[in-house]
Amino acid sequence: MSERDFSFTIDATAGAARAGVFTTPHGPVETPTFMAVGTQATVKTLDPRELREAKMQMILANTYHLHLRPGEEIIRQMGGLHRFMQWDGPILTDSGGFQVFSLETLRTVTEEGVEFRSHIDGSRRFFSPESVIAIQRALGADVIMQLDHVVPGQTGLALASEASDRSVRWLESCVAAFARGQESGVGGRQTLFPILQGGIHPQLRREAASSIRAVHDFDGYAIGGLSVGEAKSDMYAILEVVHEELPKDRPRYLMGVGFPEDLIEAVARGVDLFDCVAPTRNGRQGTAFTADGKLNVRRAELRADARPLDETCDCSTCTRFSRAYIRHLFASDEVLGLRLLSLHNVHFLTAIMRRARRAILEGDFAAWSRDWLHRYHSRPAPVS
Amino acid sequence: MSERDFSFTIDATAGAARAGVFTTPHGPVETPTFMAVGTQATVKTLDPRELREAKMQMILANTYHLHLRPGEEIIRQMGGLHRFMQWDGPILTDSGGFQVFSLETLRTVTEEGVEFRSHIDGSRRFFSPESVIAIQRALGADVIMQLDHVVPGQTGLALASEASDRSVRWLESCVAAFARGQESGVGGRQTLFPILQGGIHPQLRREAASSIRAVHDFDGYAIGGLSVGEAKSDMYAILEVVHEELPKDRPRYLMGVGFPEDLIEAVARGVDLFDCVAPTRNGRQGTAFTADGKLNVRRAELRADARPLDETCDCSTCTRFSRAYIRHLFASDEVLGLRLLSLHNVHFLTAIMRRARRAILEGDFAAWSRDWLHRYHSRPAPVS
Repeated sequence: MSERDFSFTIDATAGAARAGVFTTPHGPVETPTFMAVGTQATVKTLDPRELREAKMQMILANTYHLHLRPGEEIIRQMGGLHRFMQWDGPILTDSGGFQVFSLETLRTVTEEGVEFRSHIDGSRRFFSPESVIAIQRALGADVIMQLDHVVPGQTGLALASEASDRSVRWLESCVAAFARGQESGVGGRQTLFPILQGGIHPQLRREAASSIRAVHDFDGYAIGGLSVGEAKSDMYAILEVVHEELPKDRPRYLMGVGFPEDLIEAVARGVDLFDCVAPTRNGRQGTAFTADGKLNVRRAELRADARPLDETCDCSTCTRFSRAYIRHLFASDEVLGLRLLSLHNVHFLTAIMRRARRAILEGDFAAWSRDWLHRYHSRPAPVS
Repeated sequence: MSERDFSFTIDATAGAARAGVFTTPHGPVETPTFMAVGTQATVKTLDPRELREAKMQMILANTYHLHLRPGEEIIRQMGGLHRFMQWDGPILTDSGGFQVFSLETLRTVTEEGVEFRSHIDGSRRFFSPESVIAIQRALGADVIMQLDHVVPGQTGLALASEASDRSVRWLESCVAAFARGQESGVGGRQTLFPILQGGIHPQLRREAASSIRAVHDFDGYAIGGLSVGEAKSDMYAILEVVHEELPKDRPRYLMGVGFPEDLIEAVARGVDLFDCVAPTRNGRQGTAFTADGKLNVRRAELRADARPLDETCDCSTCTRFSRAYIRHLFASDEVLGLRLLSLHNVHFLTAIMRRARRAILEGDFAAWSRDWLHRYHSRPAPVS
């Protein structure tokens, strides 16, 4: 929402796919790109230096978790999120909507906001459009998000419509609260992204996009309510609708999507930014992304496999360690295993996005993505 | 045991304390120094690159654990321990004696060796002097250890004597097995250290030293059976006895000692090498070593403490992160907290040993160590 500090330029397109640069107060972000999730002000198991090495450009942190622990006031006192977690690149914080609405039995929604109980100590809490802006002002991320009403992927038209309309009304409150913060000089170098809801209903998505655009000309637009249980074909269809409805000269951020194939399919449909816990969660569970599909590193066949996780990968895990060693670390419950696999997986996603960007710039995105997806889907990762 | 590959030179002394250089096939080791413990071929939570950054020179791995998992044959097939775990500096493997004799109810000792049950699957195993040499040949560490009979710190004279004598007989068998390995061309660039036992009984220690020296002129000598429950005053007294009995021109390795104050006290009594899980175990439990004593990072007073763990420390944890952040990581069960604290603690010990070495070289070791110990013992770490 600040013309001065945030801009988006598009260097090339390939159909709906775009190669762009999103400029922030903490540096430029070449798009498309993947943002790792630092839920509790740390991308699980990884040091910020390792994220840099993995060419991570921008990361995400969770307002819900940081509000509960350590609390936004502590982070503000410590100089804000960038300094607290020693990440000097761009950061995006979500609004907590997704987490709160995931606490199915613990919440009550009203027009004013959502009451919930902390998953840590059961204490009663309340998020309003205004309070999530205040919390995110204290955290100090570059991009902050509106409070939205998230519903499951298969939600019917009536309920999805109600949630989408409420999200638009909450957006108006968030914009007003954000503007008041700007006037008071607090967190001036932040921008607010709206979140487009509407489930798997094309007409709802069109109406929501129109309503959001009527509120303000935002620096970027988030697409919420996907990858929450709906069919992949539904997600792709909605992305195609959304591509037509959102302004083409602003970055689009698809929330919560982070498997390699989904990233490529979504880039082909005009998405620029992604976040997901998938690479780190899969890493901690012993699953590596590879060009030939997922690889379970616990498999017995890897016991004496001297090859890297992925022979096409130049991450610091693959250039140094064997599958045999990583399997041993997982078999022995060693933390280094979680680290090496998490690092590989986040590197893998940033590398795919860089490769996609190059393909868009060089005019062969369609061929590259077709070949990449074919290899990923058709060949199980060799294991011995 | 190989004149060609291992040597020890002493650059300066200060009383019993020595500043030396122990040369190995994987590079020189400036002494005194501390070796981090990579029990299962990984120093818990840390990447070998971080150990280098912490100026770690040499590390230790455990034969017992690696024999059980993944098995020495896998490691041999993967090119040996250095390559398997990507540590290109010197490595020492223990013989498994300490671990096996810690399995109080699970073992049977005979003249031929010790039968025990795996702590992992209960399977029946047998370690003999010959078998631990064969295992360590397959692992390929620079320095390997004899099988010894370890007894608790308060063991009386008769039992301690029996164990010490058995350790000397096992040493003879280990030397013979080691020599056969050399003749066959396997693992030629390794050396074997004997382990001096004898509990807290000076006369036993003297006899054991004499017996060991009669077996062979070794490249270095380990001091076992200390820091196993005896009083600190007993440990220091035994180190003074041992200093007189072991050859002065060979490195002495005090096994299992790793608290800052013990390192300094032992250096003052002629010890050159140390290993211990203390820095990493304490780190994972939330305890930081500082110049002012131990600091429990979970303390509530640290919630908004912007200072580093130790203001005198230049490790990559202290130069970047606040106590408040590290406390948050521990409160939130985040792996990065374990990493940052483990890294700080191992760095702290290598830094103390470098500082001690400089003091020996510069002739002020007595004053430096007195001042260091005074500060460490007299002031609780400030917490707010």
